[in-house]
Amino acid sequence: MSVPRIVPVIMSGGSGTRLWPLSTDTRPKQFHALGGRRSMIEETALRLSGSDAAFDFLPPVVIANAAHGEHVRSLLQASGITPAPIVLEPQGRNTAAAAAIAAMIVSEWAPGAHVLLAPADHLVTDPAAFRDAIRKALSVVTDQIVTFGITPTGPETGYGYILQGETIAPGVHRISTFKEKPDLATATRFLAEGGYSWNSGIFFFSPPVLLDELSTFAPDIRKGAREALSRARDSGDEILLDPATFAAIRSEAVDRAVMEKTSRAAVVPCDIGWADVGSWAELWRLSDKDAVGNVADGQATLLDCANTLVRADGMQVSVIGVEDLIVVASGNSVLVVPRSRAQDVKKVIPGKE
Amino acid sequence: MSVPRIVPVIMSGGSGTRLWPLSTDTRPKQFHALGGRRSMIEETALRLSGSDAAFDFLPPVVIANAAHGEHVRSLLQASGITPAPIVLEPQGRNTAAAAAIAAMIVSEWAPGAHVLLAPADHLVTDPAAFRDAIRKALSVVTDQIVTFGITPTGPETGYGYILQGETIAPGVHRISTFKEKPDLATATRFLAEGGYSWNSGIFFFSPPVLLDELSTFAPDIRKGAREALSRARDSGDEILLDPATFAAIRSEAVDRAVMEKTSRAAVVPCDIGWADVGSWAELWRLSDKDAVGNVADGQATLLDCANTLVRADGMQVSVIGVEDLIVVASGNSVLVVPRSRAQDVKKVIPGKE
Repeated sequence: MSVPRIVPVIMSGGSGTRLWPLSTDTRPKQFHALGGRRSMIEETALRLSGSDAAFDFLPPVVIANAAHGEHVRSLLQASGITPAPIVLEPQGRNTAAAAAIAAMIVSEWAPGAHVLLAPADHLVTDPAAFRDAIRKALSVVTDQIVTFGITPTGPETGYGYILQGETIAPGVHRISTFKEKPDLATATRFLAEGGYSWNSGIFFFSPPVLLDELSTFAPDIRKGAREALSRARDSGDEILLDPATFAAIRSEAVDRAVMEKTSRAAVVPCDIGWADVGSWAELWRLSDKDAVGNVADGQATLLDCANTLVRADGMQVSVIGVEDLIVVASGNSVLVVPRSRAQDVKKVIPGKE
Repeated sequence: MSVPRIVPVIMSGGSGTRLWPLSTDTRPKQFHALGGRRSMIEETALRLSGSDAAFDFLPPVVIANAAHGEHVRSLLQASGITPAPIVLEPQGRNTAAAAAIAAMIVSEWAPGAHVLLAPADHLVTDPAAFRDAIRKALSVVTDQIVTFGITPTGPETGYGYILQGETIAPGVHRISTFKEKPDLATATRFLAEGGYSWNSGIFFFSPPVLLDELSTFAPDIRKGAREALSRARDSGDEILLDPATFAAIRSEAVDRAVMEKTSRAAVVPCDIGWADVGSWAELWRLSDKDAVGNVADGQATLLDCANTLVRADGMQVSVIGVEDLIVVASGNSVLVVPRSRAQDVKKVIPGKE
């Protein structure tokens, strides 16, 4: 008997500011190896490939910035993955547009298949637990838009929180409410109260369900996506969305455009070793450390340092006698910042305001 | 009436460890601009050029590592200086050998001229005061080996100290004793007692006087220098000392080989804005700073930093939220070290033990 088919739709967006100077507009985070052996986009594609007793993954659709198409293809080929096809965005228009495009393309390309819409630049260190969560979500996916809720490991203020509602299937809850990024006191309260999970930004849906809900809650985005796709330049391998039409689409997250409004939103709480690696400080937290808390990558020499991350990309970096510091050398740039101020990196990127 | 003639003999040695990664074996300190607009060797040659009411400077003799000959010539030419000649050392043999070679070459090349033997990598911010000190030294130079004693600005432990003895001419003292680099308590006592100055390593002598004293106290060095010079390959512009003979010369400082033993040692105490720029911390101390104590050179961005030196040589360096730190990017290398540990730089230079 055939099992449900799932098309991974990998969103390769991002502007390369939080992990500068490694991550740049030309080569944002997903094109680098962070916490894995291969680039994050390769790790993501490999994680969402192959078969399972409960489902088959079809080849992935990648939605990428038009400037990155060739690089995406060469990376995936290096990992033995042939995407079908790569959708090129002339510019970023956020995830609601990407979800609409994904639903439309998969409807045509693999009728009856579900969509697993996932960012290319997230870390999942327990892929077996992720597959387990997908299996749970399958029981409701013909009727619900499912998101994966990450079991919090601390009162993080950098994530959106989801409050679980009633159970609608084993391990699957209706979404009670979405909570914006909270302050520390609120996040601490969420953890004490229980029933909250982090919004991973990974979605699982059947194209007709998503498109229905878009028609109700964001018909303009559905219409814009349809036009950008119908006027796209399709070379077989690549679909270049029509620049003028695409640029006119409202830029909104699918959470805001659909999930916060529809009654067909479900969450599967799960513990899959997820992280979005949103700062150098977080990369330090996630990395294997030596006995004194240092993380060194590349041609790095650390003398009398502690709790320090050094990434030397094509350069020799020597660091003496510091603690809690981030030192990154990449391309033609060097960053030095205390771990506690890693969120300020975007303030010093040349050419960005 | 003709005035005394002085040949500056500029010693371009050094192994490039204390100011790594800017300074390297290939391009040690004297080839970089530190505290001046031009490279230190150019600044040194320009300072020791031209005429004065009391003396004439002849073109300089440069004693350099054989690997640096071409670079020395191109730098000096860029500043309009034609050296005559450049003496190439196959390896470093310390200052006693250099002083002997200087005396022998100047005896032949400009009979009757005096030698001002000076390292290429020292800073002198008050050249008028230096000329004044040279004028004082002239009154005894036909009989004495004169060194310039720097008026201490603090109880520095990194310098040798000279205790002044009896006055033998206006502003000129016999040297009572040389004191090795003292500990902080001893240096503090020296300053309280008075009569001490730092040993600058700059010497002023007549060739016959130095050669006489070498004959008495270090005849092997005089003999070795004579042989290395007589077997040298002389191309007119360059004199390449004979490698085998030169390598056999005892490696000793002229202070130790001659000055600490002879009774013909004199000192002119002076305040000439001298520094040997022996560490990144010292360069920070010597540099012009902004309102919060930062020194930035090159493509550097500092955000919320204080008392920090950033040198970006051909790279973009961004530093956030640190104090009292040194960050240097040069060539293919990056150094990060607290100012208080700048003396430990030599421990992290790749390929050096």
